[in-house]
Amino acid sequence: MAGNAFGSIFKLTTFGESHGIAIGGVIDGCPAGIKVDFDAIQFEMNRRKPGQSTIVTQRKEPDTVKFLSGIFEETTTGTPIGFLIENSNQKSKDYTHIKEVFRPSHADYTYSEKYGQRDYRGGGRSSARETACRVVAGALAKQFIKTIKINAYTSAVGEIVLNKSYKELNLANAETNDVRCPDSEVAAQMISKIKAIRKDGDTIGGIISCVIKNVPVGLGEPVFDRLHAQLGKAMLSINAVKGFQYGSGFKGTQLKGSQHNDSFNTNGSTKTNLSGGIQGGISNGMDIYFDVAFKPVATIMKAQDTIDNKGKKIKMQGKGRHDPCVVPRAVPIVEAMAALVLADFVLLNRLTKA
Amino acid sequence: MAGNAFGSIFKLTTFGESHGIAIGGVIDGCPAGIKVDFDAIQFEMNRRKPGQSTIVTQRKEPDTVKFLSGIFEETTTGTPIGFLIENSNQKSKDYTHIKEVFRPSHADYTYSEKYGQRDYRGGGRSSARETACRVVAGALAKQFIKTIKINAYTSAVGEIVLNKSYKELNLANAETNDVRCPDSEVAAQMISKIKAIRKDGDTIGGIISCVIKNVPVGLGEPVFDRLHAQLGKAMLSINAVKGFQYGSGFKGTQLKGSQHNDSFNTNGSTKTNLSGGIQGGISNGMDIYFDVAFKPVATIMKAQDTIDNKGKKIKMQGKGRHDPCVVPRAVPIVEAMAALVLADFVLLNRLTKA
Amino acid sequence: MAGNAFGSIFKLTTFGESHGIAIGGVIDGCPAGIKVDFDAIQFEMNRRKPGQSTIVTQRKEPDTVKFLSGIFEETTTGTPIGFLIENSNQKSKDYTHIKEVFRPSHADYTYSEKYGQRDYRGGGRSSARETACRVVAGALAKQFIKTIKINAYTSAVGEIVLNKSYKELNLANAETNDVRCPDSEVAAQMISKIKAIRKDGDTIGGIISCVIKNVPVGLGEPVFDRLHAQLGKAMLSINAVKGFQYGSGFKGTQLKGSQHNDSFNTNGSTKTNLSGGIQGGISNGMDIYFDVAFKPVATIMKAQDTIDNKGKKIKMQGKGRHDPCVVPRAVPIVEAMAALVLADFVLLNRLTKA
Amino acid sequence: MAGNAFGSIFKLTTFGESHGIAIGGVIDGCPAGIKVDFDAIQFEMNRRKPGQSTIVTQRKEPDTVKFLSGIFEETTTGTPIGFLIENSNQKSKDYTHIKEVFRPSHADYTYSEKYGQRDYRGGGRSSARETACRVVAGALAKQFIKTIKINAYTSAVGEIVLNKSYKELNLANAETNDVRCPDSEVAAQMISKIKAIRKDGDTIGGIISCVIKNVPVGLGEPVFDRLHAQLGKAMLSINAVKGFQYGSGFKGTQLKGSQHNDSFNTNGSTKTNLSGGIQGGISNGMDIYFDVAFKPVATIMKAQDTIDNKGKKIKMQGKGRHDPCVVPRAVPIVEAMAALVLADFVLLNRLTKA
Repeated sequence: MAGNAFGSIFKLTTFGESHGIAIGGVIDGCPAGIKVDFDAIQFEMNRRKPGQSTIVTQRKEPDTVKFLSGIFEETTTGTPIGFLIENSNQKSKDYTHIKEVFRPSHADYTYSEKYGQRDYRGGGRSSARETACRVVAGALAKQFIKTIKINAYTSAVGEIVLNKSYKELNLANAETNDVRCPDSEVAAQMISKIKAIRKDGDTIGGIISCVIKNVPVGLGEPVFDRLHAQLGKAMLSINAVKGFQYGSGFKGTQLKGSQHNDSFNTNGSTKTNLSGGIQGGISNGMDIYFDVAFKPVATIMKAQDTIDNKGKKIKMQGKGRHDPCVVPRAVPIVEAMAALVLADFVLLNRLTKA
Repeated sequence: MAGNAFGSIFKLTTFGESHGIAIGGVIDGCPAGIKVDFDAIQFEMNRRKPGQSTIVTQRKEPDTVKFLSGIFEETTTGTPIGFLIENSNQKSKDYTHIKEVFRPSHADYTYSEKYGQRDYRGGGRSSARETACRVVAGALAKQFIKTIKINAYTSAVGEIVLNKSYKELNLANAETNDVRCPDSEVAAQMISKIKAIRKDGDTIGGIISCVIKNVPVGLGEPVFDRLHAQLGKAMLSINAVKGFQYGSGFKGTQLKGSQHNDSFNTNGSTKTNLSGGIQGGISNGMDIYFDVAFKPVATIMKAQDTIDNKGKKIKMQGKGRHDPCVVPRAVPIVEAMAALVLADFVLLNRLTKA
Repeated sequence: MAGNAFGSIFKLTTFGESHGIAIGGVIDGCPAGIKVDFDAIQFEMNRRKPGQSTIVTQRKEPDTVKFLSGIFEETTTGTPIGFLIENSNQKSKDYTHIKEVFRPSHADYTYSEKYGQRDYRGGGRSSARETACRVVAGALAKQFIKTIKINAYTSAVGEIVLNKSYKELNLANAETNDVRCPDSEVAAQMISKIKAIRKDGDTIGGIISCVIKNVPVGLGEPVFDRLHAQLGKAMLSINAVKGFQYGSGFKGTQLKGSQHNDSFNTNGSTKTNLSGGIQGGISNGMDIYFDVAFKPVATIMKAQDTIDNKGKKIKMQGKGRHDPCVVPRAVPIVEAMAALVLADFVLLNRLTKA
Repeated sequence: MAGNAFGSIFKLTTFGESHGIAIGGVIDGCPAGIKVDFDAIQFEMNRRKPGQSTIVTQRKEPDTVKFLSGIFEETTTGTPIGFLIENSNQKSKDYTHIKEVFRPSHADYTYSEKYGQRDYRGGGRSSARETACRVVAGALAKQFIKTIKINAYTSAVGEIVLNKSYKELNLANAETNDVRCPDSEVAAQMISKIKAIRKDGDTIGGIISCVIKNVPVGLGEPVFDRLHAQLGKAMLSINAVKGFQYGSGFKGTQLKGSQHNDSFNTNGSTKTNLSGGIQGGISNGMDIYFDVAFKPVATIMKAQDTIDNKGKKIKMQGKGRHDPCVVPRAVPIVEAMAALVLADFVLLNRLTKA
């Protein structure tokens, strides 16, 4: 089926193009009885929105959510929650120059080929603007699973890598700087890097790490819907993501079993946690931690050779206001997707025993 | 829902425990009219089966598939294909010693906590034996999408890493040695490494790389069911997998947009392919390539401290015949899961246009 | 999962309460390339809307659809189609009298018990207002499957029954009178009946029949998703429906096989059609016809004994402007749901052969 | 997707043709911790199996279920339950005469057209033999929801109709006679009728009624997955079913609202129950009751004109041992499908509140 829905019980369906009337979604399966904190939702939206700092795109979009249903007297009713975010700052003229152009490493070509046509304005459906809807739903999911704590942060911008375990960091510091890196020294380097990149009209990739604490034992549905498999899919569904690893990750491939195995304490917790909080696809109560790799944004302010939709060679250059590095704004998106995965598995785990 | 089904149209549901009567599955949604090559299916099974070489577990299981339905006069009929693989070599006594033990970094603890009970024999449902069913279905999927070529191979065993692009390799060579590495020199090192590890009663991780050629443009269903997101989920659902990256992957995070963008040729192909054959979640016709990280097998032939199901400390040691490195036998599993993903998206892509 | 989505490929998810800000939905899986006839959609909306004639509720709601996405330059793009219908005429004060009341044969009690709370205004989610969203999606589905002709009509209002086969009727006449019965004489009796019932402050049930012509052979997915099973579910999901029969229906239970069997013509069509155009759950190309039974509307303008949400006995009387008979306005809803079922099966049938 | 799975959480996938090696299925989502009563499952199988009395087909099939997984030490483990029933009495030669024949009112023609080929032996996948798998799963579902009591019985055979409300009957009597009608006098008439029909080489239709008592309030997932919509789909998915009605059903269309509304008692129960135990698609705790219409079996022992798969006219006559009336053996199938629906909704209802 068309892939615009995520989750099996706590299920988000999104719609909308970057330059249409509005983007939005429906959350079906959100349990009744959650007292909704609208400010907390808007707070998450603000973490993602354009124009929030000097190192992100300077587009101005208020990104205000309008809830249409499913919440009555500030409480969820168990019926589907429809919501929308108007595209107030459409500026469609910015995009007429790409109407017939296939931009390199964008989705212009693949959408055209797949669907036979496309809304070319600003990437249309393939724009990361769609992720605003995920942040809305994720923010609500967080309120449902409120004892579980999800913290994402920037751990690399290009070659500037935060070489510390999350245990050495105060994750709350991530929100104290524009790049959302919890180490202030490294954050400063990252910010300088992004500014230099932007000045050069270029873009740069990065890594977001995420830590989930206070996870109940039992989340995840093997054999296919393992907790980490669904987390991986969630992350890989975010624009520009190229990789996912959890626990020991790619480095764990170099270890021996005798080094990698996590010994138990008598209460079922483990002395080490190379497993990353998941064993056999099911949470074991230890911290879940994972990394998400983001490629550099494809839109650069430099002239590039490309082709138009007739296959003719042309030269083009990015216009408008784009992110030099997607990572700072993607931090709340990673958290939102993690929250959606967990909310779904929390519900599914109610079904395990007779 | 319980997570024992994979795919939306070409859909595999598996069942079975490692030491029950049989494992098996149902493939629903396989199109009618595929002339089934049973030898090709058994060939894939043999690539996965125990005892195939000196560097894998020496258990003897014939792993013969028995098809029960959905194939008539050697041709698929469009009805569900039920199949089973008998557990001929059960040796349940091997496992009585773990009845009340939670083995480190196995799923014993999490299954017990989640379900309140478990079939403890040989890992039960959490055993990688289940993946034999995936190989059956994947082998059939390959026959449906037969113009698409999927080749996986071992690219790392512990610290022995094959530092070559797939373009420099003759992938057909992978099947010429026991470790399934297409570079014979590196293969020899890997095999020595595994033998040494086994002698030591230990285990080691590794990486499998996979290349998919001749992919039609248009596969993948954004925004959530992007081709790489579903591939990632598929790979992460395989036992012992800790990470997935495609195209430029984690290394791509260090690149600039001007380095990373893939310029078009006039026919829509691209000069470089850091995108890994997928743009905006949709295949663009270029090669798809990705890496899958496997942790070391948790069962080691060394004494370990652990606990029993009452939380009492005990000492235990692996028994039986286990893989010192899972990677050689996991190569066909990676291919099978890739085939299932592609078969599903090939079908879904028939639905895109009016 | 929560049940606010219908269809597997051409999939409608609806949201909204009768007295919230708006109702709406998302159509995911609508193929790209359909030139949208917006007037035709509004035409269907007008057939369902309140106030359209003297025998339906006199509420005034324009029921104008606003499309938010998925349509570009008047053509579907293959991306999800979000839409909404504002609740312009909310009149919430009409409903404060039922805040703590459980109305007989309404869903007040069951929603309260199931969800622990409810939006009591006008029935909230359980209001038939939700069906407006189905009409939107159904109208679009009709444009996708435009060679298939779906005609529903009123065949009974209370004891006034149209005792003619659809073959004896000119179905186009159904739209020439307010009750949507294609026989003008019977229509007149039905209209008189409804007026008398309304005058009495009461309501009355009825039957809608539906005929689908020009159906391709092959629609339906046995064994569970038989064409008629899905049609039945679709119809039974409409408010107030108590029964469904197709082909020979309940009367067919009295026939012998020798009477009931439909003999073939040499072109595969059948001489009779007691099967109702479906054999083994798959369309055979003959006309599909079925009946849908609607109970009388529960809201009557008479005093009734009931209870409040504390279990206290109270007396209540319907207020506001309600339908004396739901059937005339339900005709387009029946057609819409049939169109959704067929559109889905037309797409699924593309997947049957290799 | 291909339609061989039923249920969203407690999910049955079936496979198998009537004359293949075996039929079987997988139950995924059955909660852990159910102590399985295998005799009770076989008891249900025996109620459905051929040869059980003089008024059903005299084929001999033991219909013994073999469970392959998901049950350990006689208790469900939460993992998928694979099972199969061997086709011991295949007698394929009985069917060679229909290899190239399209039998009237069978699924031969539609399967051939849809899939391009078919297993012609005994109807293949379209045979009602598939329902044996539903009885297995339904029998297990009954053990999960064991406080809910489901009783189906024969209420009509041709024109012999049991004109009594279920409240006037002792439903336990249904199992005391071969036709499964709880009124012994009417049962005797029905049995005579079936014997006369069989003697004549003909078949006859009938109606099964079903009563479900002790249903918790809250089952059903509006707006599309209403309890009665899913029950209706479940019943309509059974071979030979032409209609479904619940509560007041088709007769309720003739009532006024003032007659039809069910007044509340102060404890939330209702004085009458024309609603049939469901309001707004959600169970209200009252008895659920419904009727299922079965057409006469298409295979008759009389010569019929028909066509072959080249469109040539031929004469054919039923051979083998067939049911003169499907209703007596369909009683346990109706119960099984009802049990599957309820088990699913019982699980889903755990997800309603935060």
